[in-house]
Amino acid sequence: MKALVYHGPGKKNWEDHAKPVVIDPTDAIVHISKTTICGTDLHILKGDLASCKPGRILGHEGVGVVESVGPAVTAFKAGDRVLISCVSACGKCEYCRKGMFSHCTTGGWILGNTIDGTQAEFVRTPHADTSLYPIPEGADEEALVMLSDILPTGFECGVLNGKVAPGATVAIVGSGPIGLAALLTAQFYSPGEIIMIDLDDNRLEVAKRFGATRTINSSDGKAVEALMNLTDNQGVDTAIEAVGIPATFELCEQIVAPGGVIANVGVHGVKVALHLERLWDRNISITTRLVDTVSTPMLLKVLKAKKIDPKLLITHRFKLADILEAYETFGNAAKTKALKVILEA
Amino acid sequence: MKALVYHGPGKKNWEDHAKPVVIDPTDAIVHISKTTICGTDLHILKGDLASCKPGRILGHEGVGVVESVGPAVTAFKAGDRVLISCVSACGKCEYCRKGMFSHCTTGGWILGNTIDGTQAEFVRTPHADTSLYPIPEGADEEALVMLSDILPTGFECGVLNGKVAPGATVAIVGSGPIGLAALLTAQFYSPGEIIMIDLDDNRLEVAKRFGATRTINSSDGKAVEALMNLTDNQGVDTAIEAVGIPATFELCEQIVAPGGVIANVGVHGVKVALHLERLWDRNISITTRLVDTVSTPMLLKVLKAKKIDPKLLITHRFKLADILEAYETFGNAAKTKALKVILEA
Amino acid sequence: MKALVYHGPGKKNWEDHAKPVVIDPTDAIVHISKTTICGTDLHILKGDLASCKPGRILGHEGVGVVESVGPAVTAFKAGDRVLISCVSACGKCEYCRKGMFSHCTTGGWILGNTIDGTQAEFVRTPHADTSLYPIPEGADEEALVMLSDILPTGFECGVLNGKVAPGATVAIVGSGPIGLAALLTAQFYSPGEIIMIDLDDNRLEVAKRFGATRTINSSDGKAVEALMNLTDNQGVDTAIEAVGIPATFELCEQIVAPGGVIANVGVHGVKVALHLERLWDRNISITTRLVDTVSTPMLLKVLKAKKIDPKLLITHRFKLADILEAYETFGNAAKTKALKVILEA
Amino acid sequence: MKALVYHGPGKKNWEDHAKPVVIDPTDAIVHISKTTICGTDLHILKGDLASCKPGRILGHEGVGVVESVGPAVTAFKAGDRVLISCVSACGKCEYCRKGMFSHCTTGGWILGNTIDGTQAEFVRTPHADTSLYPIPEGADEEALVMLSDILPTGFECGVLNGKVAPGATVAIVGSGPIGLAALLTAQFYSPGEIIMIDLDDNRLEVAKRFGATRTINSSDGKAVEALMNLTDNQGVDTAIEAVGIPATFELCEQIVAPGGVIANVGVHGVKVALHLERLWDRNISITTRLVDTVSTPMLLKVLKAKKIDPKLLITHRFKLADILEAYETFGNAAKTKALKVILEA
Repeated sequence: MKALVYHGPGKKNWEDHAKPVVIDPTDAIVHISKTTICGTDLHILKGDLASCKPGRILGHEGVGVVESVGPAVTAFKAGDRVLISCVSACGKCEYCRKGMFSHCTTGGWILGNTIDGTQAEFVRTPHADTSLYPIPEGADEEALVMLSDILPTGFECGVLNGKVAPGATVAIVGSGPIGLAALLTAQFYSPGEIIMIDLDDNRLEVAKRFGATRTINSSDGKAVEALMNLTDNQGVDTAIEAVGIPATFELCEQIVAPGGVIANVGVHGVKVALHLERLWDRNISITTRLVDTVSTPMLLKVLKAKKIDPKLLITHRFKLADILEAYETFGNAAKTKALKVILEA
Repeated sequence: MKALVYHGPGKKNWEDHAKPVVIDPTDAIVHISKTTICGTDLHILKGDLASCKPGRILGHEGVGVVESVGPAVTAFKAGDRVLISCVSACGKCEYCRKGMFSHCTTGGWILGNTIDGTQAEFVRTPHADTSLYPIPEGADEEALVMLSDILPTGFECGVLNGKVAPGATVAIVGSGPIGLAALLTAQFYSPGEIIMIDLDDNRLEVAKRFGATRTINSSDGKAVEALMNLTDNQGVDTAIEAVGIPATFELCEQIVAPGGVIANVGVHGVKVALHLERLWDRNISITTRLVDTVSTPMLLKVLKAKKIDPKLLITHRFKLADILEAYETFGNAAKTKALKVILEA
Repeated sequence: MKALVYHGPGKKNWEDHAKPVVIDPTDAIVHISKTTICGTDLHILKGDLASCKPGRILGHEGVGVVESVGPAVTAFKAGDRVLISCVSACGKCEYCRKGMFSHCTTGGWILGNTIDGTQAEFVRTPHADTSLYPIPEGADEEALVMLSDILPTGFECGVLNGKVAPGATVAIVGSGPIGLAALLTAQFYSPGEIIMIDLDDNRLEVAKRFGATRTINSSDGKAVEALMNLTDNQGVDTAIEAVGIPATFELCEQIVAPGGVIANVGVHGVKVALHLERLWDRNISITTRLVDTVSTPMLLKVLKAKKIDPKLLITHRFKLADILEAYETFGNAAKTKALKVILEA
Repeated sequence: MKALVYHGPGKKNWEDHAKPVVIDPTDAIVHISKTTICGTDLHILKGDLASCKPGRILGHEGVGVVESVGPAVTAFKAGDRVLISCVSACGKCEYCRKGMFSHCTTGGWILGNTIDGTQAEFVRTPHADTSLYPIPEGADEEALVMLSDILPTGFECGVLNGKVAPGATVAIVGSGPIGLAALLTAQFYSPGEIIMIDLDDNRLEVAKRFGATRTINSSDGKAVEALMNLTDNQGVDTAIEAVGIPATFELCEQIVAPGGVIANVGVHGVKVALHLERLWDRNISITTRLVDTVSTPMLLKVLKAKKIDPKLLITHRFKLADILEAYETFGNAAKTKALKVILEA
């Protein structure tokens, strides 16, 4: 089969690769119908992720059709159309029992990281019974690809951890795909204000179309003042950090109201300064989270009820065989205005 | 009357002072029976707290007898024995309605800070109806003095925020009075382990007597290894920071298990390093809080049921007139082994 | 002044009455701008409510302008435009401190019940600081009248108690004004389905316009089968009872799914049969509640953010002096299709 | 092998039976070391449970040693000492993912009910990976037998559902084994009062030894008055129903305080009267639950920390071969004062 293989920092190729086979009795082999590229894939290609070794097939998102299953798989059979979760969960370990699938002792985020992933014609998915989801009759597969990772990430790490509530004031720092996923899913809870903060006016325009009530371009270094003006100097109940650098996290520290939450979504490479000398008595919470995908059943129901349109996130479409071109487009988002790209087999 | 007055950094005096009178209709004047000294009072005396100006009577803890009340006070009358909460709460503002009394727009921690306090023969207590508590028949007044501040602080900021649960593993960093208050109140929830960490063997001995299941003397710089050994390399579900310096907060960052909570209780004067490069995907929470004293009714019930013995915290007793000597003893805790001192009028 | 006075079962009159004056220092006198009639007022007029004695001015909803305040009122002054909550809360007692304003030891639902109410030119509102709400600049007063009682009742007793969640399946039994208020506020949480059940096709049509995804006319006695068909025989996550008779409550017992909630909103006059022989092992909850109006600040924010349009509930408008005609219209809802009527001073 | 077989109402026998074998790949065969008898077994023997057919081996509690496992079992291997949960959970279905193991679509309470159980030399346990628990080194097996059913039942259905909290007032109606299990586990949360209500003075004496702060013998029909006297006419925050008849449930309705919870644990055979005409405005909750055993990991930790002594519940010990005698003793609890009996292989 063909697959997108990582060959060390800066190097990737669409090439022939051995087709995966069932290894563990709980595995399924899935024939990929549609997949996508994640910002994390770009990080891997920069060499930022030591866990992902050269030779690895990338990708942790997608939908497809089950080709075969191991003898212990009971929920799926060949021919079933499935959504692949970016997180593999055994359903048995102490963490899975707590709903912390991200820390599954034999799973977690391994697809396209420590085992071969979904940017290929076929993928082996471990713990299939608890890591795949049946695709409902009539569901739109492109929309479902957004449920592999980006929507549960924005929802769980940003919206649920951030305790977004009716009438509340929310700020989302970072209007990239993940910040926009938080924006879309925050609206499940009818907050009063969703203020989007970014450096790029184009992205802020997109945010407005997606439901942001206000936007702040922070390139003038005055985002704090601007936000305080918009909130009667109260700050926000929920600040969602969706960038992953010290400046944006520290911005959240400055705008969170007493009693509020900073919900970190961004992937951080260095430490940040936590100003406890100012925050120790402010009754705030800070949360971190790798997506658990425990909300996938809820998201499937919300999608079915048409309370969300995940296809808004899709800006470009390619054939799977043109994945190198898709990487080019996705990697130059500032120019191409790409959010999510769909790769169709 | 006599009162302990702060006269600027390093200066305090037990001196004559005008007796307080009712100013607002919701005030009460309380004749102090017993009061105590808090670590925060020592901070004020060092000049660390800009909000507390010279000329201020210190003290925010105590019990006494109501001498008079303003015309809007309905829950108390002259002659009532009362517990004085360190936090004044109007019960009306947006924060009070959320149970965040600490951020009451006309109250919060003001006693012995921005208005005169309890280390005096009489004190004016604002918002009396919602900031005083009737002393139950037969209650021990010394025990109750511990409910003004130290027990609700350890309980709300440490135990409740830290989500201490049956069977859980808890570490408390700092075995001073406030860490010990967290230790006593953590036991309401039957955690499996409470590991006390401090530099002082004497304090750790006290912790053992108070219910710590394990202790670690961190003076060798190997507290993390020691704790990981005690917890099968899992870390702790709850890490309570009860010191207030970067080293102890960062110790908590290193010992918290995935899915765990760092509950900050310490008063911090400088920023700390938050290692998000390691914690962003660990599903942890960090909480800060100035005590709200919303748990006072619960603590009064627990005290009545004899589920806690707050008098364990009391190591020394003085007459109120000997308060300068009491400060001497309390300020030299390393030598005197003082935890809390009782000053009796 | 003029007022609508209850004179015993079946008797009411719009007549001259002494204007109220401040009695307690926490009282305010409010000049009514707009008020409305509640189903409960009709119950009183039937003689169903022993607590409400002849001679009482009815009404517990409305907006107005503060005419004068007692000496202990600090949050309002003459001239302030205010929303009157149907529940009076002292903010001090054990229940108020828990957010259970409905059980305030000196308040609760007393207006138009045990003290004179709002269907008058002026009303005395006790505990004004914690029972009135300032009307935001530019707010629509008619919409705000719906926040006195009906919206917080539907929201707190039905939606919050019922734990309505994104994607969830909700049934509301009873499509009268209170069921419709639950319907409007349930949408804050983006449930997947809201199935409205009633005997009256007109009311079900209204429900569809208000956001119900499905409707069931239960007059054929086959509502359970119909609902099970609509839910793949799963039943509902939340069943909101908004009628108050045994048949509708027992319908909820039959349609609630394992793990679900029956949130009772209806006012019941007789006992119901609870089929524990079928429900003991179904992991369900049943909740009851008299509205606390603790959600009023949240509802004001949601209203400001235009996430709800309470004016949908208003079907008729009258001058306050024509209140007898308004009662006629409201009391014949089956014919007049009245939901809520606005009485304007 | 030998097994205790149900042969229809009133008939049981200790007899030869085919030894179980692995059927599904997720099965384990466990060699029973210790088991016990449950009140539910007596119900089956009376013919009360239609789901349990003649020919069935009874029993759903016990510890043992794994003899063999199916090919899909990964967490256990032959020779492992295990605790058998009374509830079998696949860990995959919609209910298991919500933690509602009791409603597992291919499990739930099936052992000794719809499939053969543990009162035998060997038992087949389905879904072994998620229904067995490794026995910690040095653990007491007799104590662990109490974790198969009775302790998680008292804890989950009574204490967790009942929201027992520090300082709270709790009543437990029924001082049989399950009520006593609730009593033991309620103490994890340091309630202020635990009032035990029963008809039998001997059982109430036992309750006192187990930690009840007060007891009421309800045989004079004046339990409500007695309880109201003990609680200053407030009633209780939590009423745990541990009998399963209308009279005891309705007693709970009469003693629950506004804002309180009735947590039903009892197995009911007929409907009860729910007095909504009195309760509709009391802000109460009523919960039902079949034990999910999701708390087993927590209970194992609490047991390890010696915060509970489950062996208090064990009054009699027999050899497994003497199980008919054990049934005799257990079935005549009024005379024998039996709580739980241990059957040792």
